[in-house]
This record gives sequence, C-alpha cells and structure tokens, in this order.
Amino acid sequence: MTSAPPDRIAALIVKGEGYNPAPEGGIAFDTMEPYLEFGEVSTPDLEADQVLVEMAMAPINPSDLHFLKGEYGQPRIKGKPAGFEGVGTVLAAGKDAHAQSLVGQRVSFAATPEGTGTWATHAVALAMLCIPQPDSVNDHDAAGFIVNPLTAAAMFEEVKAAGSPGVVLTAGASQVSKFIVALARDAGLDSICIVRRDAHNDVLNELGATVILNQTDDNFASRLTATMKERKPRFFIDAVADSTSTQIFNAMGKNSTWMIYGSLSPETPPLSNTGDLIFQHKVIRGFWLSPWLSNAPMEEKLAVFAEVQARFGDGRWSTDVGATVKLDEAMDTLVEALADPRGKVFIQP
Amino acid sequence: MTSAPPDRIAALIVKGEGYNPAPEGGIAFDTMEPYLEFGEVSTPDLEADQVLVEMAMAPINPSDLHFLKGEYGQPRIKGKPAGFEGVGTVLAAGKDAHAQSLVGQRVSFAATPEGTGTWATHAVALAMLCIPQPDSVNDHDAAGFIVNPLTAAAMFEEVKAAGSPGVVLTAGASQVSKFIVALARDAGLDSICIVRRDAHNDVLNELGATVILNQTDDNFASRLTATMKERKPRFFIDAVADSTSTQIFNAMGKNSTWMIYGSLSPETPPLSNTGDLIFQHKVIRGFWLSPWLSNAPMEEKLAVFAEVQARFGDGRWSTDVGATVKLDEAMDTLVEALADPRGKVFIQP
Repeated sequence: MTSAPPDRIAALIVKGEGYNPAPEGGIAFDTMEPYLEFGEVSTPDLEADQVLVEMAMAPINPSDLHFLKGEYGQPRIKGKPAGFEGVGTVLAAGKDAHAQSLVGQRVSFAATPEGTGTWATHAVALAMLCIPQPDSVNDHDAAGFIVNPLTAAAMFEEVKAAGSPGVVLTAGASQVSKFIVALARDAGLDSICIVRRDAHNDVLNELGATVILNQTDDNFASRLTATMKERKPRFFIDAVADSTSTQIFNAMGKNSTWMIYGSLSPETPPLSNTGDLIFQHKVIRGFWLSPWLSNAPMEEKLAVFAEVQARFGDGRWSTDVGATVKLDEAMDTLVEALADPRGKVFIQP
Repeated sequence: MTSAPPDRIAALIVKGEGYNPAPEGGIAFDTMEPYLEFGEVSTPDLEADQVLVEMAMAPINPSDLHFLKGEYGQPRIKGKPAGFEGVGTVLAAGKDAHAQSLVGQRVSFAATPEGTGTWATHAVALAMLCIPQPDSVNDHDAAGFIVNPLTAAAMFEEVKAAGSPGVVLTAGASQVSKFIVALARDAGLDSICIVRRDAHNDVLNELGATVILNQTDDNFASRLTATMKERKPRFFIDAVADSTSTQIFNAMGKNSTWMIYGSLSPETPPLSNTGDLIFQHKVIRGFWLSPWLSNAPMEEKLAVFAEVQARFGDGRWSTDVGATVKLDEAMDTLVEALADPRGKVFIQP
C-alpha cells in the first residue's frame, strides 16, 4: 500500500551554486549553515522514464559532503534537495513500461544531478537507475547500496586487471575499504590496510585483512617498508591523498599504480620521487564511479549489482551504522553525528 | 685505417657506488670532484657480441649528470668510465659475424651499464647497440644520436597514440623539446613551449612552435589558461617536474596526461587538485628510454633510427653545440662548460 504523491517535498536543500573557486579539500564541518537549509520544493512532473520514490532512508557519503562544498565532480544547483543515493518505495511513475513496472517496489537508487536529491521525504529518480531490493537486504544496506559498494567492486576489478598480488588501502577501516578487504580475501589477494586508530582492527581481521598498519605508530615507516617488500602489492587505492599517501606510494615497487578516489585530507600530497615514475614505471590516476555507471556495459553492471546484493543478503558485507538523523532535525544534529567515527550517518524522513 | 687496440683506456671514471640514499634532484654542480676522476682502466677482453670503439666524441646529457649523483634508473659502478652514448670508429670486434662486420665503421652507440662508458679514449659496446652513420651526419649530431633524438621520437609516438591535438613542453628550448616541436609541426599538431628565457624564441619559431610562453612573465598564468582553453592539448611532456609543472597540468583539460621524463628541478612538485585525477580522468606517469630500447620491436626501432638519421642528414634537426671539452682537461673545465646555456657540452679525447 503506497500513499498518494504529495504536492510538496520536504528536504535538505543545497544553498551553494556551482563549484568552489578555491577548493580547500577535506570534509570537516563546524556548521552546515552555509551549505544546506531545511525547506520545501514542489514535486516535479515526472518524465516518461522517471519515478517518484517515497524515501525510507538515505546515507551521507563523503562525496555528498565534498559536493555540498562545491568540490565534487559536478556543479551544485542552488535550491535542489541534496543526497546522491537512498532507498524507498516507488509511489508513481512516468508512462514508460519499465518505470510503470516499478510502482510499489522497494528500490535502491542513485539521484541524477538534474533531479531532486534523496535527503528528502520524496525523490525523483530515473527508472533505469533503480535497483529493486529483496527483503534480505535491510534498509541501511539498501540505502547505501550504490556509491560505496559499487565503488569498491568496480575499483577491485582494476586491482585484478592489473594482476597485482594485493591491494593497499588508506582509510583502511572505511566502508569501501572493508568491502574491498572481503573481496580480496575471496579472490586470494592480500589486503594491506592503513589506519589511524586501532579501534576497527578486530573487524578488519575478521574480514580477512592481511596486514593492518597504524600510521600513527612510531615504527610505521619501517613496518610499511617491510610489508611492501614482503607482499609486493602493486595497487594502491587511496581515499585520503595526503603526505602519508605519498610515503606509501614511494615504498611500493615497480609498475605500481596509485589510484585516488577521495580527498579526505585537506593536505596537498607532495609528488616526491618523480624518478620512480620515470624509472619504475609507476602511474598516478583517479577513479570516479559516475563514468563507470554511465559507460560500463549493462551486463557488467548487472553482474556487480547481483554480487553486491548477494553479499549484503548473506551477511558477508554489512554497513557500519552510525547515527540515524531525522530529516527535519538534521540542521541541528548533523555536525555532531558526522563527528562520530563509529559508522555511516543516515537521514530518515 | 684504424689504430691497434690499446692495453689501457684513459677515461673520466665514476667515483660513486650504487644510488644516492637521499636524492636531492637537479643537476647543478659546483665541482665534479665527488663524482668523477680522470684516470685509466684496462681494456676489457671483448665478448663475442661486443666491439671496441675508438671515441671521436661523446655528449654530456642530463641523464649522465643524474647518474653521476646516483639519482638515475641504474646504479653507479665505481671505477667504470662514465658516459652513456657517443660516436667513434670500431677498432676491434668479438667473434660474432655482426660484430666483425662493424670493424672500421663509424658508429653511434649507447654504452651498456656493465660495460665501459663513452667519456674515454675507447669504449666497449654491444654490436647490436651500434648504428653505422653516413658522412651526412656530423660528429656532434652522431655523438648525441641516441638519448635525446630517440627519447623525443619515442615520446612523440605517445602524443600521437593519445590522439591529442598538441603537446605542451617544459624546458621548451631544450634539444629534446626542439626535436618534438619539429615532429609536431610535420604531423600538424600544436606545440606549446614553456621557457624561462626568450633567448631561443627565434629558433623555436623557425622550427614551427605554435605558442611560446615564458614562465617568468607577469601574465604567464593568464596566458597559460587562455592557451590551454584555445588549443586544448591533452599531453604534457615534462623535463622539469616542479611547481610550474603542476600549474601547467592543472590548467589542462579532461583526459590529460602528464608524462615526466626528467627532473631538472630539485623542487618537489605539489600534487594539488587531486580532484582532477578523480573527476577529469587525468593521469601522471613517466617515460624512460631504456625499456623502450630493450622492449620495442626491432622494426619500430629501425624506423625511428632511419627517421632520426634522415632529419640530421637533411638539416631538419641539428644539435645545439655548446662547449667541447678535452677529456684530460675535463675535471678542470667541465663545471664552467655545463653552466653555459648555449647548448650541449661534448667530450673529445
């Protein structure tokens, strides 16, 4: 049983416009005031290939926070609800058969840049970006089904394509890293997790992490060197991009790739040891899920979706849940919730 | 008519061993004393595939200077003559037919890491790394036939493979850059030369440089931005690797490659704007001629050799000659000769 489509949508609305001309990096916030406001927008008319979703839950990802600051790969549109992904029930659909077939279904989905975001009571989605979810996948896992799990799965494909015996991960206890640790264990590859605190070591060990290195330990540099010599990973998946990232890459051997997918640190990493690029055939590049979602063959995407569903369904993967914040209280409670390092923060209407 | 092989070889001999554990970058020298000494070594017995060359002339390349400091892609071997390439006449050969066929011929050649170097009266070379030269190629061009021209030609192949409409060059008036400017003009591609002084602008314009930007000009930043917007080059060939290199790369658009082949600056470039790697699919990597010489198919190499010979032979390419230093006076005169910016320095027995 679904409710009738509303005329107005309550939402956390983007206040900025376009890009920040002087990006500062990082995602620390003292206040959300300059970036977000709670308010209402009109429910848009649906195009033929669109659906209207009654939101159940939406996660807050680092990409959302970079976006709010105008430091993400797409420009802010002032006055649009924020939030890149979430889960909910399809209330209404445009006239396309596929869109119509989704009415009443519980779906995970990614919001489009032009549409309305997921930090809202309702959101407009492209039918083709909706993934129907079985009951075995709970709301927290279904809400964050796309950005982190697909990023992890798509990046791990690159580790395998490079033929590396293992993968090095910064923000080693992050959701994306934990997903990759589990994928690496299943594929028989090493995972080397770089962490700042030992709080998550038990979880990482349980998932099958090969080596955990705490970058704040006195002997970090020597353990890093020894681990790289012993394990010889040639792929480094980096969420942080700071001087420790440079140190890690410099400790890696010939033919290594440093793939940056996040800039959690506001620091600028030094590009030291350019000789390694020349003489050791090392490469630095980035990863962004958005072109993968647009360009990867549908078959490959469906295979990845199915794999992610199976892992959430049988418990091999699960989402670390931090605070769950009410939509209409978020302006007051979000900053504190985000400062809690236990897990991902969610927004609920 | 060739002389008899000598028992002893006079040479500039490497004093360092292995790598510098704390690389400082750059190639400025106050003195050569810590790195080189003038002396003699025994003439080695020739292997079947080797020849002994009576040296006519050898160039001093940046790679030689990085090598002397222990900051190049192969370790120093204390007691071996220095010098990576040169031209001379084959005096004697091992028993292989190809080696024997070279006796009496004037050849350009690259020294092997294990063999003796070219800053000497004589040098041992692998027959397969010798390129017989016609009279139309003079000694200065023939001496520096391999490292710079082949580096330029091999790197330009990558520009074409990337489908870029043009190429950006730092050390824009260097020998390698000038070679690439001429290749770009012939291929109908833009060349954008970044220089520090305007002294070589006439030569660059004559060669067909599309745009010359002086990085010391007050309006460099705005001219850089405007040029990148207008010309849209997606390939940056960088000999310097400093903060200006970062500035150039940041001004370039989507899908751009920053290919570093030298570290003329001791500065460490900042890896700023990591977001461009993520969202604009930019890549940073290196280029080294040595694996290309070892791994490229012989056909491809022969085609490049022939192209380089043709260009030197008909004057489309020529070497900028600076000082020519006598082997036995080099310890006293080399530092001053290297400080002269007019052109490449050569060593003559």
